[in-house]
Amino acid sequence: MFQKLTFLSLVGVAVLQGCAQTNMTNTPAHSEAPAADTPKNIIMVVADGMGPAFTTAYRNYADNPATPAIEHVVFDDILTGNASTYPARVSGYVTDSAAAATALATGVKSYNGAISVDENKLPVETVLELAKASGMRTGVAVTSQVNHATPAAYLAHNESRQNYNAIADSYYDARIKGHFVADVILGGGTQYFERKDRDLVAQFIDADYAYVDTYNKLATLPAGANVLGLFAPVGLPPALDDSRAHRLAYLTEHAIKHLENEQGYFLLVEASQVDWAGHANDIGSAMAEMADLAATMEYLKSYVSSHPDTLVVLTADHSTGGLSIGANGVYEWAPEYLRSMKASVATIARNMADMQQPLAYVSQQLGFALSEDDNKQLQKIAASKKVAEREAGLKQFLDSKTNTGWTSGGHTGVDVEVFAFGAGSHAFTGQLDNIDIGNTMKAFVKGKAQAISTRPAPVSQPADSKAERPCDFKEDWRCL
Amino acid sequence: MFQKLTFLSLVGVAVLQGCAQTNMTNTPAHSEAPAADTPKNIIMVVADGMGPAFTTAYRNYADNPATPAIEHVVFDDILTGNASTYPARVSGYVTDSAAAATALATGVKSYNGAISVDENKLPVETVLELAKASGMRTGVAVTSQVNHATPAAYLAHNESRQNYNAIADSYYDARIKGHFVADVILGGGTQYFERKDRDLVAQFIDADYAYVDTYNKLATLPAGANVLGLFAPVGLPPALDDSRAHRLAYLTEHAIKHLENEQGYFLLVEASQVDWAGHANDIGSAMAEMADLAATMEYLKSYVSSHPDTLVVLTADHSTGGLSIGANGVYEWAPEYLRSMKASVATIARNMADMQQPLAYVSQQLGFALSEDDNKQLQKIAASKKVAEREAGLKQFLDSKTNTGWTSGGHTGVDVEVFAFGAGSHAFTGQLDNIDIGNTMKAFVKGKAQAISTRPAPVSQPADSKAERPCDFKEDWRCL
Repeated sequence: MFQKLTFLSLVGVAVLQGCAQTNMTNTPAHSEAPAADTPKNIIMVVADGMGPAFTTAYRNYADNPATPAIEHVVFDDILTGNASTYPARVSGYVTDSAAAATALATGVKSYNGAISVDENKLPVETVLELAKASGMRTGVAVTSQVNHATPAAYLAHNESRQNYNAIADSYYDARIKGHFVADVILGGGTQYFERKDRDLVAQFIDADYAYVDTYNKLATLPAGANVLGLFAPVGLPPALDDSRAHRLAYLTEHAIKHLENEQGYFLLVEASQVDWAGHANDIGSAMAEMADLAATMEYLKSYVSSHPDTLVVLTADHSTGGLSIGANGVYEWAPEYLRSMKASVATIARNMADMQQPLAYVSQQLGFALSEDDNKQLQKIAASKKVAEREAGLKQFLDSKTNTGWTSGGHTGVDVEVFAFGAGSHAFTGQLDNIDIGNTMKAFVKGKAQAISTRPAPVSQPADSKAERPCDFKEDWRCL
Repeated sequence: MFQKLTFLSLVGVAVLQGCAQTNMTNTPAHSEAPAADTPKNIIMVVADGMGPAFTTAYRNYADNPATPAIEHVVFDDILTGNASTYPARVSGYVTDSAAAATALATGVKSYNGAISVDENKLPVETVLELAKASGMRTGVAVTSQVNHATPAAYLAHNESRQNYNAIADSYYDARIKGHFVADVILGGGTQYFERKDRDLVAQFIDADYAYVDTYNKLATLPAGANVLGLFAPVGLPPALDDSRAHRLAYLTEHAIKHLENEQGYFLLVEASQVDWAGHANDIGSAMAEMADLAATMEYLKSYVSSHPDTLVVLTADHSTGGLSIGANGVYEWAPEYLRSMKASVATIARNMADMQQPLAYVSQQLGFALSEDDNKQLQKIAASKKVAEREAGLKQFLDSKTNTGWTSGGHTGVDVEVFAFGAGSHAFTGQLDNIDIGNTMKAFVKGKAQAISTRPAPVSQPADSKAERPCDFKEDWRCL
C-alpha cells in the first residue's frame, strides 16, 4: 500500500494513522473540522494571563468618556466562547503557562511545568510540528524570550520549562523531516542564544537564517526569509517602555510577511507580558500590553478580510493576579489615571531617584496632575532608597487611584475567553476546554494534509517515486 | 385604520408604534429576532453576582476528583457568549443590581439604584409588562425578597431600589390593561407585604390570588393559579440552611406550572443569593447557591426538551466580591473543603457557642476532619464572644483551606457569561451588552404580538367590535 503513496500522502497517512491517535478521543463534537472550512493558514494568538477582567478593563481603558456608551473594542467583535484551563489532575485546578500552552499546542493536558510532554514526560506532537510536517511554513512572534513557556510548548519538548538553554538548543537541533521546526522566530532571548557554551545565533546564520536584533533591521528583510529576530536579552521591554508600543503588532505583521507561501503557514503569536503585568500587579502595564494585543488583533482582522482562507484564534492560557475592576467595597473603577502613562512604573520608580523634582517627574510620566493628597503619598514613596519599594509604592498608588483589586502574584483558575475569526472559526464557539483548541487545530492541519494527499498524483512523476517507509510515531516522535 | 383592528392587534400596534421606539436603535444586528424563531414562552434567569469565576469555581466544586478530567456541568452545555454590565455613564464602570436589572428588563441603561426608570427618573416599559400587555401570563421566582432590585426592575418602576414598601405596593396597585403585572410571585418578603400600614397579602387574597407561606403548601395548589408565595420575612434562608437546598429549582418548577397557558408566559427567575454570598465573601454559600442554580438550569433544560417553543436565557447582572480561584501566589484551589458543608458559616458561627464541643461540631458541620493546625485556628475563633467575629473567622479559615481570594465586599466590573437555549437562543451569541438582552426579549414579545395581530379576524366576531383608541406611550407609560 505505502509504495503507491506520494510524499505528501505519506505525511497524511502518518498523521492520520499513527500520531493522530494521541488524545483525539477527547475532541468534542464542535471541534470536528469540515474539510470545506479547513483554513490554509492558522494564526494562534495566546494572551498570556488575560483573564476576563483584563478584556473588560481594556474596554473601559479604551473608552472615550465624552460619549454616553462605552465604545466597542476589537475583542467585542470576535468573541466566540470561553475555555477552561485546568492542568492534568496531578497539578490541581490552577494551571501554569507551560501546562496550558502544552494543552493548546498538543491537545493533551499535562503537569505544571511541562513543555509538550505528557504526564509520563513523553513528548506529544504539537500542531506547529504537524504543520511543518505537512509542508506549511511555521513561526512564532512573542514579547517574552522566544524560549519561554508558551512558544517553547509549540516548538519543543522538555520535562521542565526552566531548561531554557536546552529548549533554545532544540530550536536549532530538532528537525521535522529534515527541516527546522520554525522558519521565523521573533521575540527576545539573546542571552539564551549567544552563550559561552554555544552560539546558536551563529549556527542559525550558517543555516541561512537572516538574523536581526532591532525592529528596524527586521523591516529591511525581503519577504519569505527564514528569520531569527532577537530584540532583547530576555523579554522585550514592557509596552510602556519599548520604542514601539505596539511591538507585537509589528512583529506579527513581519512574521506573516516571511511565512506566506502556497502551502500555508502556522504562526504562534503571544502577548506574553499581559501575564507579567498580572504577576507584578501592575495595572498600568497590563492595560498597555492589552493595547498592543488589541492593535495586533486589529491588524489580523484586516489581514483576514483580505485573506479569508486564514484562521485566527485568540485565547488566554489562564488569568493572572486575581485582577478585579473595582475593589474594597467601592463600585468604581477609574481608568483615566492610566490612559496617559508615558513609562512603566518600574521605569518611573528607577528614574525618579535621579530627578531634582521627583514628584513633577512622576506627574509628567503618569500623565495627570497630582492632588494635595497624591503629593503626600508620593513624597513618602520618593523618600524610599530602594527602587523595589518605590515601584511597589507607585503600584499601590495607582491601584488606589483606579480602585483596582488583586488577590495574587500568581495565576488564578477562572475560565478564559476565546475569540476566533476567519476560515474554520465556527469550530471555536461556546464552552471549550483548552485541549479542544489544540485538537481542533491539529484536526485542521491533518484535514488539510489529507485533502492534499488524496489529490491524483501528477502524471509526469511516478506515484511511488518518493515513497519511503512511514515512521512509527510511538518509537520516534520526531518522525514527523 | 384602527377601527379595523382587533384587541390583540391593538396591542401589537401600540407595542410596535408607540413603546417600541424606546432604545431599539441600540439593538445590535445579532439580536434581531426572526419571526420563525419567536419563542412562545420566555424564561429569564438572572444569577445575581455570578461573575465568570463563580461558574468555573462551581465546575471545580462539582468535580469528581477520582476521575482524570473535570466533569462538565450544566453551564458548559449552554454557554453562548458574554455580556458587559456597565451602568449609565453617570454611575461609572461598575453597576449595582438595580441598574443592571433595569438594563436586562427594559433595554435601557440607567443610574445605580434605578428600578426601571431612565436617567431622568421616567419609567421605561419592561419586557415583563410588555408580555402582560400581549396577553401572556407573567411571574417571578426568586430567593431574595420578591421586591428586591432584580424582580422589582421587571415588575415595577421606582427612582430608588431602597423604596421597598412602595415597590411592594406597586405589585398590587399597578395594572396592565386592567390586569395585575404578575400572576405568580414567589420568593421572600412577608415583612414588606404584611405591614402595619397595609396588608398586601390580604389584598392579593381578596383579588383571588392563592397565598402560600411554605414550600409544601405551594405544592398543593392546582395548576394555573394566580399565586403569591412568600416563604420568609425578607430573603429565603441560604441554600445551605434551607429545608430545600435546591429551593430555586422547586420554585421555578411551580412557577411554570401556574404560568403555562395557550398565550405563553414570561418568567423571571433569580438566583439572588449568589450575590449575597459574594458580598459576604462566603465561598461555602457561594458554591451552595451555585448548586441550586445548577439544579434549576438542569430542570429548565429538561423542560425545554419537551417544550421547544420556550426560550431560556441565563446571565448575571455583575460579579460580586472579586472572587479568585487561587490566591496569594499559590497555584491551588481546594474545593474539597466545601463539598460536604451541612450549614452556612453564619449558622455554624451562631450555633458553635452553645456546643459543649464546639470544634467537634464545626468539624461535623464543615464535613471534614480537622488537622492539628486547623484545631488551633478554630480554638481561637471559638473563643470569640461575638458571632460576627466567629463568622468572619470561619470564612477566613475556609478561604485559607481552599486558597480562595476576594478583593471586595461589593461588585466588580468584569463581563459576565451568557447562556441560552430553546427557541430564539441563537440571538444571544458572542459579545453582548446587558441592554441587548432586554431589547432582544422585548423584540421577541413584540414579534409574537405582531404575529398574532396579523392573523385574520374570526368571522364570527366583527373585526372592529373591540376597537379602542390606542394609547400614547409617551403620555402614559402604563397604557400597555
